[in-house]
Amino acid sequence: METPLNCAEEQQPPPALPASWSTVTPQESPADRNDKGNAVGFVLVHAGAGYHSESKAKEYKHVCKRACQRAVDRLKAGALAVDAVTAALVELEDSPFTNAGMGSNLNLSGEIECDASIMDGKSLRYGAVGAVSGINNPVLVANRLLSEAQKGKLSAGRIPPCFLVGRGAHDWAVNHGIPPCPSEKMATKFSLSAYKRNKHKMELAEKVDTGFNHHSKKRRQASETENGSGLLDTVGAIVVDREGNVAAAVSSGGLAMKHPGRVGQAAHHGCGCWAENTSTLNPYSTAVSTSGCGEHLIRTMLARECSSAMQCEDAHQALLEAMQNKFISKSHTHTHTHTVSFSQACVYVEFLWSHTTESMCVGYMSAQDGKAKTHISRLPPGAVAGQSLAIEGGVCRLVNTPTTVD
Amino acid sequence: METPLNCAEEQQPPPALPASWSTVTPQESPADRNDKGNAVGFVLVHAGAGYHSESKAKEYKHVCKRACQRAVDRLKAGALAVDAVTAALVELEDSPFTNAGMGSNLNLSGEIECDASIMDGKSLRYGAVGAVSGINNPVLVANRLLSEAQKGKLSAGRIPPCFLVGRGAHDWAVNHGIPPCPSEKMATKFSLSAYKRNKHKMELAEKVDTGFNHHSKKRRQASETENGSGLLDTVGAIVVDREGNVAAAVSSGGLAMKHPGRVGQAAHHGCGCWAENTSTLNPYSTAVSTSGCGEHLIRTMLARECSSAMQCEDAHQALLEAMQNKFISKSHTHTHTHTVSFSQACVYVEFLWSHTTESMCVGYMSAQDGKAKTHISRLPPGAVAGQSLAIEGGVCRLVNTPTTVD
Repeated sequence: METPLNCAEEQQPPPALPASWSTVTPQESPADRNDKGNAVGFVLVHAGAGYHSESKAKEYKHVCKRACQRAVDRLKAGALAVDAVTAALVELEDSPFTNAGMGSNLNLSGEIECDASIMDGKSLRYGAVGAVSGINNPVLVANRLLSEAQKGKLSAGRIPPCFLVGRGAHDWAVNHGIPPCPSEKMATKFSLSAYKRNKHKMELAEKVDTGFNHHSKKRRQASETENGSGLLDTVGAIVVDREGNVAAAVSSGGLAMKHPGRVGQAAHHGCGCWAENTSTLNPYSTAVSTSGCGEHLIRTMLARECSSAMQCEDAHQALLEAMQNKFISKSHTHTHTHTVSFSQACVYVEFLWSHTTESMCVGYMSAQDGKAKTHISRLPPGAVAGQSLAIEGGVCRLVNTPTTVD
Repeated sequence: METPLNCAEEQQPPPALPASWSTVTPQESPADRNDKGNAVGFVLVHAGAGYHSESKAKEYKHVCKRACQRAVDRLKAGALAVDAVTAALVELEDSPFTNAGMGSNLNLSGEIECDASIMDGKSLRYGAVGAVSGINNPVLVANRLLSEAQKGKLSAGRIPPCFLVGRGAHDWAVNHGIPPCPSEKMATKFSLSAYKRNKHKMELAEKVDTGFNHHSKKRRQASETENGSGLLDTVGAIVVDREGNVAAAVSSGGLAMKHPGRVGQAAHHGCGCWAENTSTLNPYSTAVSTSGCGEHLIRTMLARECSSAMQCEDAHQALLEAMQNKFISKSHTHTHTHTVSFSQACVYVEFLWSHTTESMCVGYMSAQDGKAKTHISRLPPGAVAGQSLAIEGGVCRLVNTPTTVD
């Protein structure tokens, strides 16, 4: 049903720009023209940017497959995009291999604090939680905040919140039926050993710095923690449903060894995800989910920038230029990111993923498919992570014309 | 030095749009052409939107004057825009009459949790705190986050945070020398009595609802708390310094009776404030600070939208259209807001304020002025708050051409 495109783009170290970006125009494959049933919808998930060793690749692919299947199951049952994207995220959060929900990075105090957000392209509403502990599926809280807000004002005219953080977010979630999870059950053998390694590295770095009084020198001398070496594997998904609505979501345990209370792009409106149905102003429905260095993604508001750029006929070229002009060229530290996004016009979905990290793991599936496809995209040999860009994607034809679900 | 403009614009209840918006082109007054010294810079503050009784008006004007003076004192001492805007905010937060810092609204649990953010138009960096308790001047934390991030990476390659919330934000602040303040000292007689009134109203509303099982019915029946009746008086300021840099900041205690952990627009990038120096892409430097219903301001990203719209010759008309098209027409609940903003080209500063609330209190001052001017802008008689719009402003000439401070 889809034609995968492969188009790795490399930018040489600044200031040199590539002489030309080769673009590939998505083509509909013959398979697209077959109606395989009434089920309509599409999901694309990402589950880890950074560096994927061959040994871990299999696990990432498995979780992507399961997440796609979960979303498609919900779409087939008549769910709208917001609920299907939430189902995909729950599966991604439940995996101990991703940096979201179970198995999230530990912060400086050895605790897990998660961020998540969701956006509904139909209502343009957004729900988010930041730095929340003791909740295994933060995306469920984000989803619930969104749906509660749609019910209107609370008692005595109070406006329902769209963004809750910390202990307040935890308590609100539990009061709304979302089960708590003891923090110690959310840590994995892997996340605990990564914490110990990082702590040791920090102690070493600070010992080395003892002789230096000048603060900036101390910082420059510092070695990289696992933040820098790739464990930025925030997860996310984008969905289109049978009505043509789009939704996007993202969930993250944040940077390893982050300060307690730090909130990253995954909870920040316009930075972690964006979804916008077609309207009089927008010829295309668009949805975007990002991962990477939260501070830089907040500063660049990358999800919204990509979504806005993709309101054109050549979404592939537009995404490429947005990543180049809005992200890479504005980064002073060669930060890493990846995005998955799609634009949708009528019954066609064009889906794309791009990354400046060494690799990125994605899965995608339409409601007509028997199973999801997964792929680990890698930068070309010799490309410098943070300065080079890979962009790939495909096109999918949704068989049924949009209909209204009762 | 400035020519105040008065131009109250009214939109009749939807769907009717006004037949035409009357616009006023700012004019330079003869006084603008006098060089009154070497001091260069300008500050505009807002300290309360909603309804200002005559008895409270005097207090609001006083605090606005003091805030302007603080910023100008810093500018005269050679400070850059970011530090001057922080000084103005500290004065606004210290006032027990504003809903920021001391005297903030109490949340559902009777606690004070504050949001604040700051943006530097030169570096486009942003610093923010959300739902932080026990800190009298949240803007100092936002400012410090911004300045710490500019120093580069932390030990062991960790990326410094730009946004901290809750207990983590409090601890980070104290570790960086910002004094804590016992929460009970931040509550005032006024904020405590408002809390008791609101709590009583909520209990009454919920008793009335006891007979109704249907949740949405229960919500519709609810009466308004003081959220709805005007206590949305988030404070903010925008500054231009002698180098021509702009900065914006905002600080808020949030909605009365909000859920613990709720974060509003004052901590949200692009929603509470925006500042952007002139560049190859932007012919004008712009700075914006907003106040109002946080959830709607987050959804509409109003600060960034206004800033972006004002990149044109007629900033007054652009702001008016942005408020109309990006805010009022997208509000389903007639939410209230106000913005202060300015655009700056070369040595001229055009400053504007607009509001859909019944009134708005502003103060402004250039570094050449002996004292600040203050004004309480009101909607015209008969205009409906939330559906009508007032827009006013002026123009100021900065005497010196931009110079570099060592």
